[in-house]
Amino acid sequence: MQHTILTGDRPTGPLHLGHYVGSLRNRIELQGKHRQFIMIADAQALTDNMGDLAKVRRNVLEVALDYLAVGLDPAKSTIFIQSQISELAELAFYYLNLVTVARLERNPTVKEEVRSRGFERDLPAGFLTYPVSQAADITAFRSTLVPVGTDQQPMIEQTNEIVRRLNTTTGQDVLVECAALIPEFGRLPGIDGQGKMSKSAGNAIALSASPDEIKAAVREMFTDPKHLYIDDPGQVEGNVVFTYLDAFDPDRATVEELKAHYRRGGLGDMAVKRRLEGVLQDLLAPIRARRAQYAKDPGEVLNMLAKGCDTAREVAAQTLHDVRRALGLTYFA
Amino acid sequence: MQHTILTGDRPTGPLHLGHYVGSLRNRIELQGKHRQFIMIADAQALTDNMGDLAKVRRNVLEVALDYLAVGLDPAKSTIFIQSQISELAELAFYYLNLVTVARLERNPTVKEEVRSRGFERDLPAGFLTYPVSQAADITAFRSTLVPVGTDQQPMIEQTNEIVRRLNTTTGQDVLVECAALIPEFGRLPGIDGQGKMSKSAGNAIALSASPDEIKAAVREMFTDPKHLYIDDPGQVEGNVVFTYLDAFDPDRATVEELKAHYRRGGLGDMAVKRRLEGVLQDLLAPIRARRAQYAKDPGEVLNMLAKGCDTAREVAAQTLHDVRRALGLTYFA
Repeated sequence: MQHTILTGDRPTGPLHLGHYVGSLRNRIELQGKHRQFIMIADAQALTDNMGDLAKVRRNVLEVALDYLAVGLDPAKSTIFIQSQISELAELAFYYLNLVTVARLERNPTVKEEVRSRGFERDLPAGFLTYPVSQAADITAFRSTLVPVGTDQQPMIEQTNEIVRRLNTTTGQDVLVECAALIPEFGRLPGIDGQGKMSKSAGNAIALSASPDEIKAAVREMFTDPKHLYIDDPGQVEGNVVFTYLDAFDPDRATVEELKAHYRRGGLGDMAVKRRLEGVLQDLLAPIRARRAQYAKDPGEVLNMLAKGCDTAREVAAQTLHDVRRALGLTYFA
Repeated sequence: MQHTILTGDRPTGPLHLGHYVGSLRNRIELQGKHRQFIMIADAQALTDNMGDLAKVRRNVLEVALDYLAVGLDPAKSTIFIQSQISELAELAFYYLNLVTVARLERNPTVKEEVRSRGFERDLPAGFLTYPVSQAADITAFRSTLVPVGTDQQPMIEQTNEIVRRLNTTTGQDVLVECAALIPEFGRLPGIDGQGKMSKSAGNAIALSASPDEIKAAVREMFTDPKHLYIDDPGQVEGNVVFTYLDAFDPDRATVEELKAHYRRGGLGDMAVKRRLEGVLQDLLAPIRARRAQYAKDPGEVLNMLAKGCDTAREVAAQTLHDVRRALGLTYFA
């Protein structure tokens, strides 16, 4: 069965290996099989970046370059910019009537994000209501599958609640429910082993990292702090170098041998890091090369995005039309 | 100086004498002198009427008929339907990032309306955020004057806060501030003297009332409950019949004579009511006749609304364009 998938990223910084493992890699695999919409979520980025409009704007093109560099294919996936699809904002506006303030305040994902941003006192209304905006994005394309991390599952529940409320309120099957697609690998830890990889934590390796940056990042990488001598037994669990080998080394058998060797002692961190560095250089070299190629002609990238926006707008406009008609908001022939 | 004015009504029931005194009458006077946009606020009506979509839809045409019947002239005022101007929803969507949840919860008008609707526990997000939507409506037309009752003044403050925040955030003078235009007469009491006239309170005289309905309403009207005998002195203050004479009788001198006579005794309620009934029949007869005339051709009324929507959309689209550009959300030539 062919699914419709909505996925995307907020353009607030360059994409990194965490994005690659958690989503980009899966999208490449999904793009041949399903109808995939990939959204550069600039409007959502504004909900907590009104103070840095230039950053959001600049990163729209950067994220598009990252997409093309890893092999997302505009011929197979519809890549578009959220703010260019007015229909998404209008759907969100109507959905606001289908969800209570108390329900939004209870959303565990929002609660955690409000806490981590220190928004307790000055929470922008647009941030509290962004699950409604997400519901608009998801339903606009009649998405049936939405790749999310486990921490984002409440967003899917919220969306389906809105779907059911709209259908019940209007007595029509206007919108379709969606299911979460939880990625196999999940969150990649940062190179410091402290939480997930993120640009703001300073523990990321960007997809556009230079060979020297990759080298330096692997050298700094957190291993087993108790593994002081090569002959000592080392721990593989929580050892970022092995986590990355699991995530990126195509030679599974060799990785398992290395783990066994490391556990029983006699394998030094330097040797394992050399292997990982090779793996990452091999992975990122062609991505970097393709990125440089696309970056030479930003006009062509913008053309690609404009076409994606046209396709996305057409689909979203049909959904909006259906929602408006169901709400009784069409008066003219 | 020519102002731009935004005003309008929620299509949740027929308009009545309270609307006439508090706003419609003023609009007729303003329509020659200023640029006036009159909005049938169907989207705003949905914020607390999702359970009765048909009512909102039906009343859009009814309100338009009331407008034409009282003499609002589509050649002088732009009459349009809120939901047909997508740009308003999109502006509201961006403005949500410029106001905090705490600020919306503190809004005295919203607080009072939440209380009166019993929404404390199940407040729809769209209702909490409707001041943001109003700010979008007001600013979309670059309105400088907004006719509101004193109880709605916090909405004007909220709008101007959003205007200033957008201008500060973007470092550009994108939006213009507005001022409240408080009507001279204010709220008309209901015929029972219990609070303001409203359809839901069952104390209203609709603009489309029949001669018999007018007669019956005046007969029921609250006067001075202590004025038992014609010869007794009567009270004019709080006496609804006199309040209505003040509001509707064009012969000010005679009304003052009647008040003096009633106060010193010797003037019966029946006599004053007969005069008021004559005044109201004279006022409403031509309105009813014009309404019946327009109601014969709903297609023509819809045509008028469609033209108004086109004009409104053009103005709102320019504002949205300016806001999006200031936010950095334009990528394509």
